[in-house]
Amino acid sequence: MIIVLKPDAPPEAARELLARIEEKGLTPLHMPGSERVVLGALGDERVLAELRLESNPYVESVKPILAPYKLVSRELRPEDSVVRIGRVGIGGEAFAVLAGPDAIEDEASLQETAQAVKSAGASVLRGGAFRSRISPYAFEGLGAEGLDILARTGRATGMPVVTEALSEVQLEEVVAKADAVVIGARNMNNFPLLKAAAESGAAILLKRGLSATVEELLLAAEYLLHEGNDRVVLVERGVRTFETNAPAMLDLTAVPFIKRRSHLPVLVDPSNGTGRRELVAPMALAAAACGADGVLIDVHPTPPSARAGGAQALDHEAFRRLMRSLVPVVQAVGRSLA
Amino acid sequence: MIIVLKPDAPPEAARELLARIEEKGLTPLHMPGSERVVLGALGDERVLAELRLESNPYVESVKPILAPYKLVSRELRPEDSVVRIGRVGIGGEAFAVLAGPDAIEDEASLQETAQAVKSAGASVLRGGAFRSRISPYAFEGLGAEGLDILARTGRATGMPVVTEALSEVQLEEVVAKADAVVIGARNMNNFPLLKAAAESGAAILLKRGLSATVEELLLAAEYLLHEGNDRVVLVERGVRTFETNAPAMLDLTAVPFIKRRSHLPVLVDPSNGTGRRELVAPMALAAAACGADGVLIDVHPTPPSARAGGAQALDHEAFRRLMRSLVPVVQAVGRSLA
Amino acid sequence: MIIVLKPDAPPEAARELLARIEEKGLTPLHMPGSERVVLGALGDERVLAELRLESNPYVESVKPILAPYKLVSRELRPEDSVVRIGRVGIGGEAFAVLAGPDAIEDEASLQETAQAVKSAGASVLRGGAFRSRISPYAFEGLGAEGLDILARTGRATGMPVVTEALSEVQLEEVVAKADAVVIGARNMNNFPLLKAAAESGAAILLKRGLSATVEELLLAAEYLLHEGNDRVVLVERGVRTFETNAPAMLDLTAVPFIKRRSHLPVLVDPSNGTGRRELVAPMALAAAACGADGVLIDVHPTPPSARAGGAQALDHEAFRRLMRSLVPVVQAVGRSLA
Amino acid sequence: MIIVLKPDAPPEAARELLARIEEKGLTPLHMPGSERVVLGALGDERVLAELRLESNPYVESVKPILAPYKLVSRELRPEDSVVRIGRVGIGGEAFAVLAGPDAIEDEASLQETAQAVKSAGASVLRGGAFRSRISPYAFEGLGAEGLDILARTGRATGMPVVTEALSEVQLEEVVAKADAVVIGARNMNNFPLLKAAAESGAAILLKRGLSATVEELLLAAEYLLHEGNDRVVLVERGVRTFETNAPAMLDLTAVPFIKRRSHLPVLVDPSNGTGRRELVAPMALAAAACGADGVLIDVHPTPPSARAGGAQALDHEAFRRLMRSLVPVVQAVGRSLA
Repeated sequence: MIIVLKPDAPPEAARELLARIEEKGLTPLHMPGSERVVLGALGDERVLAELRLESNPYVESVKPILAPYKLVSRELRPEDSVVRIGRVGIGGEAFAVLAGPDAIEDEASLQETAQAVKSAGASVLRGGAFRSRISPYAFEGLGAEGLDILARTGRATGMPVVTEALSEVQLEEVVAKADAVVIGARNMNNFPLLKAAAESGAAILLKRGLSATVEELLLAAEYLLHEGNDRVVLVERGVRTFETNAPAMLDLTAVPFIKRRSHLPVLVDPSNGTGRRELVAPMALAAAACGADGVLIDVHPTPPSARAGGAQALDHEAFRRLMRSLVPVVQAVGRSLA
Repeated sequence: MIIVLKPDAPPEAARELLARIEEKGLTPLHMPGSERVVLGALGDERVLAELRLESNPYVESVKPILAPYKLVSRELRPEDSVVRIGRVGIGGEAFAVLAGPDAIEDEASLQETAQAVKSAGASVLRGGAFRSRISPYAFEGLGAEGLDILARTGRATGMPVVTEALSEVQLEEVVAKADAVVIGARNMNNFPLLKAAAESGAAILLKRGLSATVEELLLAAEYLLHEGNDRVVLVERGVRTFETNAPAMLDLTAVPFIKRRSHLPVLVDPSNGTGRRELVAPMALAAAACGADGVLIDVHPTPPSARAGGAQALDHEAFRRLMRSLVPVVQAVGRSLA
Repeated sequence: MIIVLKPDAPPEAARELLARIEEKGLTPLHMPGSERVVLGALGDERVLAELRLESNPYVESVKPILAPYKLVSRELRPEDSVVRIGRVGIGGEAFAVLAGPDAIEDEASLQETAQAVKSAGASVLRGGAFRSRISPYAFEGLGAEGLDILARTGRATGMPVVTEALSEVQLEEVVAKADAVVIGARNMNNFPLLKAAAESGAAILLKRGLSATVEELLLAAEYLLHEGNDRVVLVERGVRTFETNAPAMLDLTAVPFIKRRSHLPVLVDPSNGTGRRELVAPMALAAAACGADGVLIDVHPTPPSARAGGAQALDHEAFRRLMRSLVPVVQAVGRSLA
Repeated sequence: MIIVLKPDAPPEAARELLARIEEKGLTPLHMPGSERVVLGALGDERVLAELRLESNPYVESVKPILAPYKLVSRELRPEDSVVRIGRVGIGGEAFAVLAGPDAIEDEASLQETAQAVKSAGASVLRGGAFRSRISPYAFEGLGAEGLDILARTGRATGMPVVTEALSEVQLEEVVAKADAVVIGARNMNNFPLLKAAAESGAAILLKRGLSATVEELLLAAEYLLHEGNDRVVLVERGVRTFETNAPAMLDLTAVPFIKRRSHLPVLVDPSNGTGRRELVAPMALAAAACGADGVLIDVHPTPPSARAGGAQALDHEAFRRLMRSLVPVVQAVGRSLA
C-alpha cells in the first residue's frame, strides 16, 4: 500500500504512520519527495484496513497495490473452477445454456418450455418463483407454488433447476428444492442474504449489481468463499448507464476481464442484460465468442402474454434459431455445448 | 397511454388491442398516421400493465401519460406531509439536522457526540449498529449491542434516534428501540424488507439507491404507502456516475424535482452523498438553499480513529462550524432549524 | 407526436395548440382523459420543432412517435449500404479489418506494421497523424508529415488508408491524401467539422461520442447525409460509465441495435473501446459474432515503446494470433474477410 | 509515481525501469514485497510520460502521486484568481450573474432582455449567436448577425457581453466583438479551438464536457494556461448520467472540489445544467450556497416562443423573482452581487 501525505503533513505524522505499519507486521517505507512525502507498506495490506488511513487528516490519498480480493483470484488458484449444478458442470471447456421463463406461470406452460429448450440444447432449466421488481404494481411471482412447479418440472425433464431467492426465508425454501440459487442484481450486496447463501452450501449464481463494478462483484463473491462456500458462478447481466435505448447495457468486457483475474466461471444473461428481445441472440453469440462459460436465456411459449419479462423473452421457435446460430460460434472458439 | 404500432402491424392487431383496452374500462383511441398507427388508452392506465403491451410483437413503443406512482404524488395530496420522528417533525417549515457517527463504537463516545451535536443544533441522533458494506473485510457494526447503546443515549440526551436495518430480523429489533428505521441505498428495492418496514408502522427514512432514478425512489416509496405506511421520508444520498473524484455524486436537483411532484419530505445526506469530508459543509448549505427539509451529517469525536466512514466524518468542532454557516442559509430561504 | 397537457391547462391552450398543429399540415387529435388532456399530431412531426412545444407552460411532456432521423433509417432504405474505402467495401457480406498504430511515428515502423497486418489479413491501414488527447502533456502526433508517411505507405503496400482530422483545416489535408477521414469521438457533435466532412464527399468513419447515445450517433450521421454525403460508416468505440476497470466500456449492443434501424455499416474499435490490450482480441471476436461489419485494431511493432496508445496496442505476433482466432468466428456467422 | 510490477516480472525488468527513472532525473526506489515488486519515482513525474510505463508488459499498474495539472493548481498560486470580463471581475468576493437568451433572435428582443436582467441585478449579458446542437433540424443561431446585435446591445446597456464560438473562424469574430468567449461543453477537448482561444488572449469561459471528469476540465484549463492565457473561468454545466428526469445532472460538488484545488473562478450554469425551467432557481441558490463565483441564467421575454432553449429559459418576471431569492443566500455566505 502506498500512502501519499499532504504537503503540510509534519514529520511526526509520517513517523507515527510508519510505526503503526510496522506494528501490523508489514515492511514500512519512507520516500520523501520534493513535493510530497510518500510512505509504503509492503506485505498483506488487507490488515491495514484497521489503520483507517483514509481518515487521517495528513493523508492525501491511499493507493492499494494488491487487489482487495484473494480467494476468488487466479493468483491463488490458477486453474478454472467448475461448479456443478446437478449433473451439469459450469466452467471449464463446456458452454452451458440455462433457459426458461422470467416468471413461472403454471405447470403445463413450464413443462412445454422445459421440453422445448432441452430438445434445442439447453442443459439447465431456469424460472422465477420469487420475483424482484421495481414497482408495487408489477407481478411478484407465484412464490412457493412456483418453486414446487419448477422442482417437479426439473425432475420430469431430467434437468437441474435454478431460481432466485430474495430473502433469507425464501433462500431456505429454494435451497431445499432447486439445484442452485440465484442472488439477483439488486441483492449483490445484501450481506445477510449472502451469508445465508454461503452457509447453505448450495451452488450460487451471483449476479452483478446494476451499478456494481466488476471489482465489487468479485468482492461479493470473495465474501461467499470467505464464508466457506466456493460453489460460486458469476453472472454479467448488464449495467446502468446514460444510454436509454435499452433497460441495461450488457458489459461483455467483464467476461475476459474476470477470466484473467478469477478462477470462477462466468455466465452472461443477454435477456435481462439488454431487456430487448431483438438483442438477445446477437449478444448470446458475442458472449460465447468472448469467452463466457454459458448464457441464461428467457424463453416463454408466447411472450406477448407473459406475465413478466415479455419484452425480452424468446418464443420456442426463436430459441431454436438462436441455438442453431450459437453452436457454430461455440465451436469456433474451441468449445462445445454442456 | 399511447401505443405506437410497428409499420408492419396488420389492422387486426390494432383492432384487437383496442378491444382489450375497452375491456379494461379505458377509452380506446385509433390514430392512423402516414408512417405509423398510434393507439391511445385514456383513463387509469396502471390497469394496463396486465395487457403486457411491451411484449406484443406489433407494438413499437408504449408511452405512459401518467406518472407510475399515485399515493406519493402532490396531485393526490397537495400539502407537504410532515413525518414525526419522536417529537421532531420532518417536513413543513422547519429544517432538521440529524447527526451522529456512521458506526456506533462504544457508549462513552456516542454520548459525547450526542451532546456535542445537540448543543450545536441537531435535533435527531443517528448512528449505525448494523452496517451495509461492500467488502467482507470491512467493519460490520456492533449489531444489537450498538442498537442498545443508541437507544440509551437517545433517552439520556432527549433526542429521537434513527438507525439502519439490513434484514427483516434486524428491522424488528430496530423498530422496537429506535424512533425511525433507515432503509439504506443498497436496499431501496429489497421488497421483503420494504414490506416488513411498511407493516411495522414505523417512520421510515428511505434512501435513494446508488443507481436509482428519482422515479424509482418514488416508486419504492409508493410501495410503502400502498402497504399502508405513509410515514416516509426520502433521502438523497448521491448516485454513481463516471466521475471518480468522490465515491458518489450528490444529486441536489432531486430535491426540487421531488418537492414539485411529491408531498413527502426530502432529506439530503452530504456525508455518504460525497464520501469526502471537505465537501460535506458546502453541500449541506447547498441542500438547505435548494429546498431540502434537512440533512444527515456524519459526526465522530476523532475521525482518524473511526472504525468506519472516517473519510467523510466531521469532528465536533467542524460540525459546530458547519452549523454556524448553515443557520444563515436556512434563514435566507425563510426557514428555521427544527 | 403526442402532447400531454398539465392538469391546470385551460381549454383554450388545447384549442390554440390544435390550431397550430393543423396550420403545419398535420392531423390534430384531441383526447380528453380523466386526469390529463392529451393532444396528437399525425404526420411528419419533424416540422413541429418550430412550435417549441416543450417551452409551452401548459405542456407537461412531448412524446415523439417517429425516430428523429430519417435518411439513415432502414425504413427509407431497407438494404445494407456498402461504403467504399479505396477498393475495399465496408458493409454487406464481408468483414473488414482495419489495422495500424494509434500514432504514426516514422516511415520504417509504419511500413513494417503495414506489411505485417496486410499479410495477416487486414485490408485497410489506419494510423494517427493528428491526435486528439486530453492532456497538454500528451503526444499530439506528427501532423502533416505523418499524413504523408501514411499516404506513401498505403501506396507502397497497396492498402487504402484512413486517419483522423480534428479541424476543418486538417480535414482538407486528410481528404486530399487518405481514402477516408475519421471523425473522432470527441468531435461527433462538432458541426462545423461535420459540415466540412460532408461537403468534401470523402468516405467518413464517424465515431460514437464517449457519452453519446446511439440515437445521437445516428443523428450526427443524419446530418452528414442531409448535407449530401452518404458515404458514412459508424464506429462503436466504447462509452463512459461508472466502471473503472478500463478507460471505456465497449457497448456491443449498439451493433445489433443500429443494424436493425439503419442501413449504414457499423465497425467496432475494441482497442480504443476498451483501452486494455488483454481485452482487444476477445472483444474483436465478440464484435464479429454480434454482427459488426468489421473492426479497427491498434497494432504497433513494440507497444512498450509506442508514443501513444501503447497500453492497448497489439504487437505483430499478437495481431496474427487475433486474426487466426477471428476467422473461424467470422465464418461461423456466415461471412468472410474483406 | 508508483509502479507496480506483475508477479512474473523478472528482476531485469525492474532494474531497467529504475535506470530509466534515474536518467530522467528522478529518484528511483525499489520496494520488493512478498506478492509484488513496487518501484517508485520521486520528483516531477510529469516527465515520465515519455517512459510509457502503462505499455510495459511487466507493469501491472501505474499510480501517480501528483495531480496531472500544475499551472491551474492552488499549490502554485494560493490566492483566488480574478478574471475581468469588461469591467466585471469574476472570482474573489463578488458573486456574478450572467444572464440572457440561449439564442439571440432579434435586436429589439435582446435589448428588452438586457434591460430587464440589468435592472434585476445581472452584470454581464450572455446570448448565443453560433449555436451547438445535436440535430441537423435544430436552430443553428443567427451567426455573425447575432454577434453584431449582441455587441451593439452590450454597448447600449453598458454591459460586457459573452458568447460561444464553435470553430477557429468563429472564434476570431467573437474575440473581436465580445468581452469573453465561451468554449462549450462539446468543445472542452477540441484542442485546435482551445489553442486559438489561448492565443487570442481573450477571457475564456470553459465549460465542463458532458462526460468530463473535473480533473479533465482542469487539464483542459491547464492547456490554456500552458499556452499563455490565464484569463480562464471554469463553468459547471451538468453531466450525463443514468438519470432521465432532466437532460443533465448538475454536479455542484464540482464547485467546492475545484475551489480547493484551483485558483480559477468557477461559475455554475443551472439552465443548461438542468435543462428544466423549474429547477433553475433552486439550483442557482444552491450554487451560491456552496461557493460558486456566479451563475449563468437563460432568460427570454417569452420562453414558449423561444427558438431554442425555451424549456429552460426564465421569463423576465421569473428572473426578477430568482434575483430576489438569490440575494439573501449570497449574503448568507458573506458575499455580494458583482
